[in-house]
Amino acid sequence: MVDQFNSDFRSSAPVVVGVDVGGTKIAAALVDAQGSLSGRVRCPTDVDNSEATLDSIARAVGQAIAEGGFSPREIHAVGLGIPGLVDPIGGIGIASVNLNWRGVPVKAGLEARLGLPCLLENDVKAAALGEARFGAGKGLDNLIYLNIGTGIAAAVILENKIYRGSNGMAGEIGHMMIDPNGPLCKCGGRGCFEALASGPALVARVGQKIQAGRTSILTQDPSLEYPAFTSEDVFRAAALADELAVESVKEVAEYIAFVIQILALAFDPQGIVLGGGVAFAGKAILDPVIHSLERLAAQNWVFRELFKPDFVQVTKLGSDIGVLGAAALVAPLR
Amino acid sequence: MVDQFNSDFRSSAPVVVGVDVGGTKIAAALVDAQGSLSGRVRCPTDVDNSEATLDSIARAVGQAIAEGGFSPREIHAVGLGIPGLVDPIGGIGIASVNLNWRGVPVKAGLEARLGLPCLLENDVKAAALGEARFGAGKGLDNLIYLNIGTGIAAAVILENKIYRGSNGMAGEIGHMMIDPNGPLCKCGGRGCFEALASGPALVARVGQKIQAGRTSILTQDPSLEYPAFTSEDVFRAAALADELAVESVKEVAEYIAFVIQILALAFDPQGIVLGGGVAFAGKAILDPVIHSLERLAAQNWVFRELFKPDFVQVTKLGSDIGVLGAAALVAPLR
Repeated sequence: MVDQFNSDFRSSAPVVVGVDVGGTKIAAALVDAQGSLSGRVRCPTDVDNSEATLDSIARAVGQAIAEGGFSPREIHAVGLGIPGLVDPIGGIGIASVNLNWRGVPVKAGLEARLGLPCLLENDVKAAALGEARFGAGKGLDNLIYLNIGTGIAAAVILENKIYRGSNGMAGEIGHMMIDPNGPLCKCGGRGCFEALASGPALVARVGQKIQAGRTSILTQDPSLEYPAFTSEDVFRAAALADELAVESVKEVAEYIAFVIQILALAFDPQGIVLGGGVAFAGKAILDPVIHSLERLAAQNWVFRELFKPDFVQVTKLGSDIGVLGAAALVAPLR
Repeated sequence: MVDQFNSDFRSSAPVVVGVDVGGTKIAAALVDAQGSLSGRVRCPTDVDNSEATLDSIARAVGQAIAEGGFSPREIHAVGLGIPGLVDPIGGIGIASVNLNWRGVPVKAGLEARLGLPCLLENDVKAAALGEARFGAGKGLDNLIYLNIGTGIAAAVILENKIYRGSNGMAGEIGHMMIDPNGPLCKCGGRGCFEALASGPALVARVGQKIQAGRTSILTQDPSLEYPAFTSEDVFRAAALADELAVESVKEVAEYIAFVIQILALAFDPQGIVLGGGVAFAGKAILDPVIHSLERLAAQNWVFRELFKPDFVQVTKLGSDIGVLGAAALVAPLR
């Protein structure tokens, strides 16, 4: 009887598997139409070769289904968020530095292993969908998800769909040059947004001030000697009112605000959601960003028209965003 | 027999009227599916009150139809490009400073006068459609039309449709703050793109240099004493290798290139077309913009991926762009 009941319940609210494929770890879980998670698993990514990687993904999916107490035939589909360049229609992992992939037929390989329909997407684009479906962007049709972590990229959702651009490069705003005198960027350019406002850029900014002789909580703990500390350490120091950390966070927030007003006037979205490692600092980064935008809106009436309360938010999905974003790729609509 | 032939020809290639409604002049013409113009007319805009303005628009349309040798019932539809904020679906001129309009039922008023279906659109958005249909953007589905004149705005075409954003403000990039230490802008902000790179901004830049004691061809002609000269005069002086004019155009071109790389990475369009008064300078503005973008692409490999030959062009429609854009609103597709 219980089985009968469960099976009825399941058919009315299909369950999908969301898989967040990282370069070191795979996170997978079952997700229902309301975004509730069950059967969470986390296992290492085997990056020896692409077949081994697909094996480890399939293993994680199988474990999640079993953990959640389902059988594979009760699963609607599997969604995967992949770091790097992806062809979602062909189901190909075009290029991924973290996974060491070039032209890997991911969809075909996983469907053969799992016997379930699989859909893949770039992880930041998937996260944007997750945010629109389950998170801070719930109910918004036009949304920009600004991922600020080790790298920076935006995913743009227009009319409920991921907007890719002509070459799949829409939202590659980490490499907007925003300060011609700024630091060198990995791309070879100078003063890219990523070189000024990513997690490593924040750390480097603090490190330079320390090397210039400034003191900080961060210089009192030998284990944190630059470059051993992370952006999280900087936010922790800022929370303790460490002057150098507060000042550095504020400087980075200015750059983030600068780009947010650009995106607002270019796309006129309903909202902008910050995600990624830097955004996980929550109010510690959001407050100075909002403060900087408020100053701009006070002067510039065109931007003021767009800058409504809650126009800029940080992700509400926390570390589940990867799995929820992947699930959003295949979760049947509300 | 000739009539018979003409009528057959016409039914296979319907003719529309394109109307460029300006604050001082109305330009109208018949336009066929290939973008050929006939029956051009130009008459003053009566801005006494909105009924008088609609009368003068209807008069221009009637004259164009007669000039072209057609009768009204042979006309497919009338497209209108309107300066200011427009509700194309409701057919309302929401607000136009130049026409002194607030909530004018333009579509209903003109359809009653003309007995022809009418469609209106903001003039920059219409121009973008014209460029995509008949001009430099021919064959492109994703296109940004960057209008640089007295003001600056972009119109974004995504998947062959005008992209408006959530509040109809997508592309209001004239009010992106791009230099926190820049000059004051009409919007109240400081360092907006429009305050740095519009026609008047170029003139002001040259004027400041002259007032600071620099000499120029522009100072030798007393009739051109600042602020009596225009951006066209500056381009004319630059063409004569006037150092101050060349330098000023280059500075403005740097700002334009700065925003173009931003738009390229945000939208990943197939192309960007420059229009408006400043773009009418042609190669005189395009060459320094391209030069600046080439320097950026040489360093930044992400931007380099997008910066293909002819990625940035100036309008090919010249002063017909207003009429052709308006016609593109209603011209049956290829």
